[in-house]
Amino acid sequence: MANKGTNYNEIAEQLHRRHGGKMATALRDAAQMTRHELSAYYTPGVGHISALVAQDPRRLREFTWTNNLVAVISDGSAVLGLGNIGPAAALPVMEGKALLFKHFADIDSVPIVLDCASTEEIIETIERIAISFGAINLEDFAAPQCFEIEDRLRETLPIPVFHDDQHGTAVVVLAALINACKVTGKNINNLRIVIAGVGAAGTAIARLIKEYAPSATIIGTGRNGTLSLEDASLDAAKRALLTEDILEDAPNTSLSDALVGADVFIGVSVPNTVTADMVSAMAVDPIVMALSNPIPEIYPDVAQSAGAAVVCTGRSDFPNQVNNALAFPGIFRGALDNGVTQITEAHKLAAASALANFVTDPNADKVIPCIFELGLAAAIAEVIV
Amino acid sequence: MANKGTNYNEIAEQLHRRHGGKMATALRDAAQMTRHELSAYYTPGVGHISALVAQDPRRLREFTWTNNLVAVISDGSAVLGLGNIGPAAALPVMEGKALLFKHFADIDSVPIVLDCASTEEIIETIERIAISFGAINLEDFAAPQCFEIEDRLRETLPIPVFHDDQHGTAVVVLAALINACKVTGKNINNLRIVIAGVGAAGTAIARLIKEYAPSATIIGTGRNGTLSLEDASLDAAKRALLTEDILEDAPNTSLSDALVGADVFIGVSVPNTVTADMVSAMAVDPIVMALSNPIPEIYPDVAQSAGAAVVCTGRSDFPNQVNNALAFPGIFRGALDNGVTQITEAHKLAAASALANFVTDPNADKVIPCIFELGLAAAIAEVIV
Repeated sequence: MANKGTNYNEIAEQLHRRHGGKMATALRDAAQMTRHELSAYYTPGVGHISALVAQDPRRLREFTWTNNLVAVISDGSAVLGLGNIGPAAALPVMEGKALLFKHFADIDSVPIVLDCASTEEIIETIERIAISFGAINLEDFAAPQCFEIEDRLRETLPIPVFHDDQHGTAVVVLAALINACKVTGKNINNLRIVIAGVGAAGTAIARLIKEYAPSATIIGTGRNGTLSLEDASLDAAKRALLTEDILEDAPNTSLSDALVGADVFIGVSVPNTVTADMVSAMAVDPIVMALSNPIPEIYPDVAQSAGAAVVCTGRSDFPNQVNNALAFPGIFRGALDNGVTQITEAHKLAAASALANFVTDPNADKVIPCIFELGLAAAIAEVIV
Repeated sequence: MANKGTNYNEIAEQLHRRHGGKMATALRDAAQMTRHELSAYYTPGVGHISALVAQDPRRLREFTWTNNLVAVISDGSAVLGLGNIGPAAALPVMEGKALLFKHFADIDSVPIVLDCASTEEIIETIERIAISFGAINLEDFAAPQCFEIEDRLRETLPIPVFHDDQHGTAVVVLAALINACKVTGKNINNLRIVIAGVGAAGTAIARLIKEYAPSATIIGTGRNGTLSLEDASLDAAKRALLTEDILEDAPNTSLSDALVGADVFIGVSVPNTVTADMVSAMAVDPIVMALSNPIPEIYPDVAQSAGAAVVCTGRSDFPNQVNNALAFPGIFRGALDNGVTQITEAHKLAAASALANFVTDPNADKVIPCIFELGLAAAIAEVIV
């Protein structure tokens, strides 16, 4: 019988209702707001500040909250495990992200949900409001549109644009994988890896692992089994992963067959799709990352009893939580503090290494830090330069 | 020699640079953020909240910060006295507005500046992000586009949309006028009023005064003197004021001529355009509202020496500051608290009366409250039902 962890529905509803939401705004200057301060912060004094910015728009960072401000933007098309629930229902998640930004990196952030019908509308809307922010965290946009949205915004906007479901996840997975290899004595370059679910996260995970460990073998699986160029129905993004040799072009087979002899399972897919038998058929000391959230592809106790040497999930109530909150607060903290305008592959690799190295003595129950460890965001921010 | 008040440029620059902006975000729940709270506020708990909102979008207010959240939106086309300085340079002002919302009414607000080329783009962009907020404060949009932007958004959006430069100003001017009439013994319905500058503010002021005092006579003046239907170059918005009998269709003459015998001058125009001689030529006990900011149409000491019985300006360093901050915090506080989805003419009239009545014993130096008076926002919020 699997340990299914805690049910947080009731307490979530209580807390959200008690406070009526999670975030608020506050004054940076806690000093008494007298007529004098008000005349400086607002009219007539603020006119002088606006005139200075009009002369040199780069001074926006010096005089406005944009120096510490991230927009958390979503269209609600791929929210948690809930799918395309739309912008209104996505807002509680985006507000939660703003809470994480504040709590873990003292970054101010604003959740913005978009009621848009098309990729073009999403891109142009974000372009039109971007000047209000210091950086943009794209969140819960569905694949494959998310790739074009991020790529084009990175080209047109002069501030960091980071799709956290892709890159935040990839950074944390790579960090966990680096340490899981230390624990199991496996060489990351010799790994045979199966990624179930080659959407936003799966794509970025595959690309970042290959960047770090070019000789690793990665097989992707989707609803129709392993990804192969023989499948004419593959979309352009998935096809590119195969033609660029990020994924191995495997003859079409099932997830179950693909896992036979594999060292690593990385699931960013759907609940309850991996069985104990499938884990038993993997190579010795298999590494299982069952990241479907909140219900994993396989529960940790089940995977362990089938021989898994290291198990990670996306949940906070099991060990080894692969949680984007381990990465994005530090990545954005570094970008804002160090004037970084694009978060590059090199930044992501550096962040993954910093995150892996933050665990001083990796073991099966600890291949990644806990998000509450002091200094974590700062350690990552340091390498985003 | 006019008393030109304090120069706030230096202190504004100091304060803005020291704090690097004015606003921040904060957690509503100040309790220790443990793994437990985090699991409720973010994954997995927040998934339940999103599912509840997906079932019934009206519950967004119950579970998100939108119940207390106003977007302060501008395109930077008519910022203070600076004109069309664009979105970047407008941001310090919008952030200042967010500070006022927080300080005076404990309303959370987010400054959003728009990099848009057309009225259509502005409208569609605001429509696409509106679901993120509980109400919208339009700010510093130029006339006449501001009228169409507000009208259309009021039609399409289910939340309050309020162009503060129009209606906030109108509410405060009407309140000041009501009390200035008490001080001078004038009957508001018999007044002869000259409004210099029939843009966003001037238009709304004229409409609201006529709503309150239908028999008052109002003459508008612009760059080419008094507004008349004989002027074929008048835009549709100004023409409507004349055909609807909000403004008197006066034969074209100068501001100077129009002021002869007038009871009230309301300037929402350009600095230094009214002379002592012009005030001397007005009716007995003239009321002078020189609201151009930061440099008024005429300085108070000059107007007083020419016989003005009551002088108002837009500045905090002179008595009788006609400041939108007297009205909008309470108006939005009431709208958010009382579930008001449209701010109507009746709401504005009620707010003006509440504001006027808040001054217990009006005199020449106090026809409107000071923005720091306790209970002001609450007194206005009470009538927005």
